[in-house]
Amino acid sequence: MTQPSDKALVPFVSVDHMMQLIHRIGMDDMLRGLADYIEADFRRWELFDKTPRVASHSDVGVIELMPTSDGEAYGFKYVNGHPKNTAEGLQTVTAFGLLADVASGYPVLLTEMTILTAMRTAATSAMVARHLAPKGADTMAMIGNGAQSEFQTLAMKAICGLKSVRLYDTDPAATAKCAANLAGHGLTVVPCATPEEAIEGAQILTTCTADKQYATILTDNMVGAGVHINAIGGDCPGKTELAPAILHRSDIFVEFPPQTRIEGEIQQLAPDHPVTELWQVISGTAPGRTSDRQITLFDSVGFAIEDFSALRYVRDALKTHPLYHPLDLLADPDDPRDLFGMVQRAAP
Amino acid sequence: MTQPSDKALVPFVSVDHMMQLIHRIGMDDMLRGLADYIEADFRRWELFDKTPRVASHSDVGVIELMPTSDGEAYGFKYVNGHPKNTAEGLQTVTAFGLLADVASGYPVLLTEMTILTAMRTAATSAMVARHLAPKGADTMAMIGNGAQSEFQTLAMKAICGLKSVRLYDTDPAATAKCAANLAGHGLTVVPCATPEEAIEGAQILTTCTADKQYATILTDNMVGAGVHINAIGGDCPGKTELAPAILHRSDIFVEFPPQTRIEGEIQQLAPDHPVTELWQVISGTAPGRTSDRQITLFDSVGFAIEDFSALRYVRDALKTHPLYHPLDLLADPDDPRDLFGMVQRAAP
Repeated sequence: MTQPSDKALVPFVSVDHMMQLIHRIGMDDMLRGLADYIEADFRRWELFDKTPRVASHSDVGVIELMPTSDGEAYGFKYVNGHPKNTAEGLQTVTAFGLLADVASGYPVLLTEMTILTAMRTAATSAMVARHLAPKGADTMAMIGNGAQSEFQTLAMKAICGLKSVRLYDTDPAATAKCAANLAGHGLTVVPCATPEEAIEGAQILTTCTADKQYATILTDNMVGAGVHINAIGGDCPGKTELAPAILHRSDIFVEFPPQTRIEGEIQQLAPDHPVTELWQVISGTAPGRTSDRQITLFDSVGFAIEDFSALRYVRDALKTHPLYHPLDLLADPDDPRDLFGMVQRAAP
Repeated sequence: MTQPSDKALVPFVSVDHMMQLIHRIGMDDMLRGLADYIEADFRRWELFDKTPRVASHSDVGVIELMPTSDGEAYGFKYVNGHPKNTAEGLQTVTAFGLLADVASGYPVLLTEMTILTAMRTAATSAMVARHLAPKGADTMAMIGNGAQSEFQTLAMKAICGLKSVRLYDTDPAATAKCAANLAGHGLTVVPCATPEEAIEGAQILTTCTADKQYATILTDNMVGAGVHINAIGGDCPGKTELAPAILHRSDIFVEFPPQTRIEGEIQQLAPDHPVTELWQVISGTAPGRTSDRQITLFDSVGFAIEDFSALRYVRDALKTHPLYHPLDLLADPDDPRDLFGMVQRAAP
């Protein structure tokens, strides 16, 4: 046995640690904290090293690496997408992520990101809605009541002051699950039998369904003037949720155009259809909502910088809440040139 | 506390485990095993998903992700390169890697790869030398006696039958360290005072120096007919070891031309200078060494498929030697749609 030095030990946040961290900080406070970190990184968007995700496709799914860097820290997320997994009792999406120090190249954090991705996706949606939703919006239609639905709803409550959520899913069991999970969180929760019922009186329309096909969750006649659409589920080639006519009536806001044009709702539109980059709205260099009757649409696909913000948040949160194991990940010989000697001296 | 299921637990091989694994299997046998796995993957080279590494550069170093897939398994390595780290008591290169199941997207192995990369680099060099070095080659000049030198030497012994190694480094302390580490391994070890002395009688010339600059470790008049040059150290833009005249006299063999033309010795040559892909030699579709007087040159830069082979080797070795910790990396709710409920039920 050799004793690794501090530099060789990387803090690892397990799934169990992440759940403890959420309860220690509080779900609402953590969603708000994540939104603040994400917003701060959107404000300094231009300085990031940006690249579309690096995807490895197969017949049944995709495995992706999503790296980015702000010049001081480097982060990446590993994430898979396998829609058929659910039928086998597995998660469609699992993820983990890593943060490293650019100056030394040494990793400084390894963490589960299945739960953290759900949190950052919801925090991003709510941060964007804070900028784009009509003033006083307090009712949301939540269409698609799967794994992301409760996080979306609670983020809208914590960050935008949501008071009421109207739930709809093609599977009533999913709606029942979502309603049960949201009970006791200070929201009016209204299960609905149809999508038309769900959107009654809602100023925010969130779509988050999982089918990998060109689906039409919202049709044109369902969407009235003045709403904000938060479209989460269209996030890969061939997977969309909105009728093209809605897109043509909306002002469309995106994270990173080269990625969204391939993966988002706007894959249904011409490649030069005008869109606004969210970082420009958030940093004040492009208009967001300009009228009460305007339809704003956040075509969310999820971008590496949001994961980077989430990794930064967790790294900082561990200073107050040390919920991690030190992981013996990096070989650290006393003499950097003597890796072989280190191995040799470990002989039993 | 919730209890993660087996599917959520990823075997993790720490640095300490990797060192134990080497001793359990034996250094020579493990190098031979790695060479066999790497050679097997070179034989089926065409079916791999190949991409140049995804690099994030800064003023002081680089962080890279190296993914690949054979359609059944997906692997990637995280690796940094920070030459100035040594002065701060840190490793120039640290690495870890992951293997995942393409069918589900679930990771199946996370492992340290600083030591494993040294092993696979050496195993690759020796596997290539087995194909290209002159018959009966039993003496190697090892120029550059840093972290990789002992692994290179022992791999050439285990895989090519090397009997004698002649060591040279600009720093005599590095040579002394290498010679001490190699004592007792059944080799004749000859420390040399000059590179000219080191190459006397050597049929294999291995260069493995670390300076990030256009250095000239071997000059043209040092290299006689019939040798095999194993050039390890030239592995990034601006870092080469050989005089261009040597390259022009050699038949050059490379792993993956799009990467080697940027990173290898051949960055000094015209972009259309002829090279042979090693997988073609190994699968019998291109000639290797064709005459006793030919100079063969392996312009090694290290490619993702070699890491993939090493990850496969470790995954299989763990079946016999279960040296790992199960890591709680993947959230695995009973109901895949109820991630939020899983978090909620973890409340203290």
